[in-house]
Order: sequence, then C-alpha cells, then structure tokens
Amino acid sequence: MQNRPYNFSAGPATMPEAVLAQAAAEMLDWQGSGMGVMEMSHRGKEFVSIATQAHNDIRELLAVPDEFHVLFMQGGGLGENAIVPMNLCGSVSGQPTNGPVLTDFVVTGGWSQKSAKEAARYSQATVVASNESNQHQTLPDPAQWRLSDRARYTHICSNETIHGVEFQTLPDMAALGSKAPLVVDCSSHIASRPMEWSKVGLAFAGAQKNLGPAGLTLVFVRDDLLDQAMDICPTAFNYKQVAANQSMYNTPPTYGIYMAGLVFQWLKNQGGVAAVEAVNVAKAELLYDCIDQSGLYENRVAKNCRSRMNVPFFLKDESLNDAFLATARERGLLQLKGHKSVGGMRASIYNAMPLEGVQALVDHMRDFEKTQA
Amino acid sequence: MQNRPYNFSAGPATMPEAVLAQAAAEMLDWQGSGMGVMEMSHRGKEFVSIATQAHNDIRELLAVPDEFHVLFMQGGGLGENAIVPMNLCGSVSGQPTNGPVLTDFVVTGGWSQKSAKEAARYSQATVVASNESNQHQTLPDPAQWRLSDRARYTHICSNETIHGVEFQTLPDMAALGSKAPLVVDCSSHIASRPMEWSKVGLAFAGAQKNLGPAGLTLVFVRDDLLDQAMDICPTAFNYKQVAANQSMYNTPPTYGIYMAGLVFQWLKNQGGVAAVEAVNVAKAELLYDCIDQSGLYENRVAKNCRSRMNVPFFLKDESLNDAFLATARERGLLQLKGHKSVGGMRASIYNAMPLEGVQALVDHMRDFEKTQA
Repeated sequence: MQNRPYNFSAGPATMPEAVLAQAAAEMLDWQGSGMGVMEMSHRGKEFVSIATQAHNDIRELLAVPDEFHVLFMQGGGLGENAIVPMNLCGSVSGQPTNGPVLTDFVVTGGWSQKSAKEAARYSQATVVASNESNQHQTLPDPAQWRLSDRARYTHICSNETIHGVEFQTLPDMAALGSKAPLVVDCSSHIASRPMEWSKVGLAFAGAQKNLGPAGLTLVFVRDDLLDQAMDICPTAFNYKQVAANQSMYNTPPTYGIYMAGLVFQWLKNQGGVAAVEAVNVAKAELLYDCIDQSGLYENRVAKNCRSRMNVPFFLKDESLNDAFLATARERGLLQLKGHKSVGGMRASIYNAMPLEGVQALVDHMRDFEKTQA
Repeated sequence: MQNRPYNFSAGPATMPEAVLAQAAAEMLDWQGSGMGVMEMSHRGKEFVSIATQAHNDIRELLAVPDEFHVLFMQGGGLGENAIVPMNLCGSVSGQPTNGPVLTDFVVTGGWSQKSAKEAARYSQATVVASNESNQHQTLPDPAQWRLSDRARYTHICSNETIHGVEFQTLPDMAALGSKAPLVVDCSSHIASRPMEWSKVGLAFAGAQKNLGPAGLTLVFVRDDLLDQAMDICPTAFNYKQVAANQSMYNTPPTYGIYMAGLVFQWLKNQGGVAAVEAVNVAKAELLYDCIDQSGLYENRVAKNCRSRMNVPFFLKDESLNDAFLATARERGLLQLKGHKSVGGMRASIYNAMPLEGVQALVDHMRDFEKTQA
C-alpha cells in the first residue's frame, strides 16, 4: 500500500506518484537551466526540447501513423465539440459546398449527447443511433446505425466517462458502407489501450484523465482533413494553423505539456500501452467480479461494453451510500461518489491507478457488505 | 542576490520564488487532502475552495466593480482575438442587427494588429488609429482617433509586449464622444498597476506574464455585455455560459488557477497592486535611465508611452549582440534576446522580477559598455 490515499476521481484524476515527485523536484530549476518549466519562453530551446520529446513519445506510445498530426491544444472536450465541426464542416479544398453539411452522431451517453447538440449549431447533425432508451447501458449495434449518405463525419465517444460504456473495438466505417471519417472522443480512455488508427479520421482527448492536468487537449488529425475548416473557425483553434506551427501558433499550455510528457515517460517505463492495458484489464476484472458476485452492489451496463476506466455502481440499498463513502474515506479511498446525473458510486481506474488501489477498494466493498449482513 | 538566475522572458515569465516553492511542497498533497491539486475533481470541495479564493483575491487586488464578471478561461490572447468578437458582435438582446457590425481597433504594435486582423473575420473591423508609420514607437493621440459612429466596441492593447508601448492612462471613450465599450487586451501588464474600470467594458489577459502559467486566460466582462454573442460562438467560450457556471462549464485549467491563486496571495503579501506598482516604477526608471545615459544602448519608444513591463533596447553596434547575451548569461541574466520581429534585446520586468534583478541587469549593461570603450 502506498502512503497517499487512492483517488478514484473521474477527472482531473490521480497522477503517477513518480511523476508528481519529479515535477516537485524540478519546480524551481529544470535540469540546471535556472528556470522552472512554467517560467520558460515557449520558443526557447529548453521548452522546445520538452515539447518535442512529449510529441515524439506520444507518437511512439500510441503508434500514431505518419499521416496523422498530433496537436497540443486548449479547451478540453467541450471546446472540441465546437472546434471539430468548425474545422471539418467548411468547403473542402475551397470548392463550394453543395447543400447543408451533414454530421452523424452515435449517442451512447452524456458526452456524445453534448457533442451532437453543439455540432447542430454548425451543421445538420443527426443522431444515427442512440442507447438512450436503454438508459445508456448498451452499445447500439453498428450494423443498425442509420448513417447519412454523405455525412462530413461520424462522431462517437469511445468511452463514456459518466455512464461507463466503452467501445471494445471501433466501428469500421468502410465496412459499414460509409466514406465518412470517424471522429473519436477518446478523452477518458486514451492510452489505456492501443488505438485502431486505420478506422480513425480524427481523435481528441482532454488530458485530465489519463494523460496529465486539465487545460491540455490532444488532437490527432489525419492530414487530408486539414483543408475543410469553416470561415468562422478561430485561427487559434484551426487545426491547419496549429499543425503548421507545431502547436505554437499561440502560447501553448506549457506546464500541461511538460506534465503530460512526464506521464508519457512513465508509461514507457511501465512497458508501454500494451503492458498498461494488461493491468487495466486485470483491474477492471477484479472490480466487476466483486460487483457481480455481491448481493449489495450492481453495475447496470451490458457486459460487452463495460468500461475498463469508469465503473459506475450502485448500492441496492441507497440509504447506505453515505456510510459507504464515509468508511471508504477512512480507508484512504477518495472521490467515489457517482456523477450527479447518474447517482450511486463511480470508481475511475485510469492508467495511474495501481492494481493495489483497486484491490483496496474491493476489500472495502466486501468488508462493508459484511457489516450490513 | 537570489540563488536562481534572473529570467527576463516576455512570457511565460519568471514566477515569484516563494510561489514555486509552495507549489513544489504541495505537489503530492495539498493541505492534508491526500491529493495534489492537479488530481482534484474541479467540482470537489477542495478545488472549489481554491478557485473561490483565487476569484475573490483577484477581485480584491484589482478592485473589480460588482458589475464585472471575472472568468477563468482558456485559449490565451490569440484565442480571445476571436472569442471577443464572437461574444460581442451578435444581435443585442435578441433584436435583429441593422447592417454590418462595426468594430474599431487602435493599432499600437504587433498584438493589436493581430486582434484587428482576426476580428475582421467576424465584423467590419476598422483601424481607427495606428502608430505603424512611426514603427510602433509612439501612441496615437486619442483626440485624433477616427472612431466609427456605431462601433460595437473599440479595442486597444494597453501594453504591447513586443514593441514596449504602454498606455499610461486608458482613453475615456465617453469623453471622446463614443458610446462604444472599450475592450482592453492587458495581458502583459495586468496587476502591475491599478485598472481604470470606469473606462472599461471588457478586459482580458493571458496569465503567463504577470499572473501565472500559460493556458489560463482571465476575462473581466461587464454584465450588460453578456447578451450579444454571435450564434456561432462555441458554448465553451460563451462568456454568459462561463459566467453562469462560475467558470466551470467545462473543466477549467485547474492547476493554472491554483498557481494564479498563489500569485494573488503573493501580491497581497507584497502590499497589493499599489505597492507593486511603486516597485515597477522604480525598476523601469532604473533601466530606462541606464539606457538613456549610455552611449551604447538605445530605446526608441517615445518617453510618454514607454512600457514599465517590456523594455526593448538595441546595441548601437549590433555586432556586439551575441557577446552581450553570452556575458549576460554568465552573470545569471537569462532570456534577454529581443522578439524576432524587432531584433535587439528585450528585458521583461514583470511583477515577479525583483528590483535586484533589474539592478543586476543594469550593472551588467554598464560593465559591458565599459569593456567596449
């Protein structure tokens, strides 16, 4: 057991202790430069080396193909909900647009719902499949999606942080007869498993779950999608501009990039994404097994799409919620309360949560259930 | 003399050593919470208390009137160049707009130039005064500004970071016969002097010069300006939405807010903005006097608008530039190279630069000049 409590926050979320320790040690002086990272000009050689290393490391970790640009941006997932359509729904290569621009959305929880709503301000956005009638507890079968003939893109949220629904594999748009590039909001499970790039046109992720602090957004965009921004797209959020300026068109969130870079180094030290994925599988199995075997707890998500990262669960007797949380806190298990729109509990078990933390949670859950017997 | 070198970066810029030391000490555990600040849910009581304190402190430090909202946002100054017009150039209170929406810009350097260019994508933007023919070394007399009759707003950059031009007092739009609210980009001198709120409609500042790390933007917006956003304004960047959600519509840059909050506490410990301003005046006098009294250095900005924060200067023999920078570095004086668009040298002497740092620079300048005699 570590000295610090285990923090199950859904994001901003627990960071690897070694990363925080290094950041603390370097706060006043980064590697003999006489400056803390926060104090460096983003155009100076010291910070450029930090950003370049972070960029190279995430490309290596996720095996990002050459035809994708990796952008460090700001605004988070909710910002991207507007930034994506502003970048993808303009005229293509300067050719006039013929009729309304269509976009397709697969709604699988709170996040994709918000994405569809925001995109409707910039395009004719259609919900082509939804699990709303199942309380966001299933994944709609891709074969049943009512895809538009000529959507500019199809959007999914590959892991729904609030509802705990995860795509175990990405849909293959070509196999579904669609030419639309797939846009993937992978904020809450990026780098927890390999990415199926051949199925992706654009992916984005707020850093504050698996990669680092809030205020940094990673965008992975295929080169052929850089030439269709709307005229109204702000220059600072225009992917082509950001790519052409190595993510330094405007001053980037320098400290966030540094922290993400330390996380990338930590991931490499763990053996990379495949090694971390194996631990994530073990953690999720441990927790879901505990829930499924108990008489007190339940997870309502269909087994084929349960998230490895975000595990919402309920106490069948909800009057015990406060006692469960209070005794968890006494054992050093923090931030387990569920999202207000769902209720109950939620354990977010991102990359930085060790197996020991999940074991400690499971121990608590079993002990607590016994006290209620 | 402090142990660390003196860092004259224009931004991201030097931070108070005490602030960095506190951040380092709290990195793994903020005040016994068992979590670092970076790991806290933005909706948890710990982080809400940090954000509330920061909010209250900046209001107190700058004596922000009640009718202004203080927003913590993302995207920096270049982001705001689009976000401001997207928030101010829509229909007012739902009434249809009559004809094109006009905006006025006073160009006094590189930053206001960029602001005008970006706003032209959202409005009919007019440069109503410019110091370009004077190489951005003077301030156009407000009495000569050719203000539009019905501009939605008039934009100034009250301190030009690159060209070193500062408004010593803000223009009084009402006295100039204009009803347009004044929009002030005060990124590089915010909190270095009191703010004349009675003359301001909206002010914004990237934090990375006087307030904290890059990736946090402060926006101060008068309440009556919240009801005129364009339909295309992204929800995450809509001031009304951000204000209604206490800057937590989307996940804010939590660590940046924490660091800015530590800077606010530090400013209060220094005696507040008036006390810091007195030091800033002394620092600027010391440096400009050294330049003006020398035969080697020159600053070309008119004396009535020289910036207290950003001091560009040139060696009359430019072949000495590299030697000047190299010997400065040996003495622990960092990041003195001028902006690429201007050349020469630039010393940024923000709030966090102590008088001793400017004295050390002046000592170096005098010693270097002597070696050339």
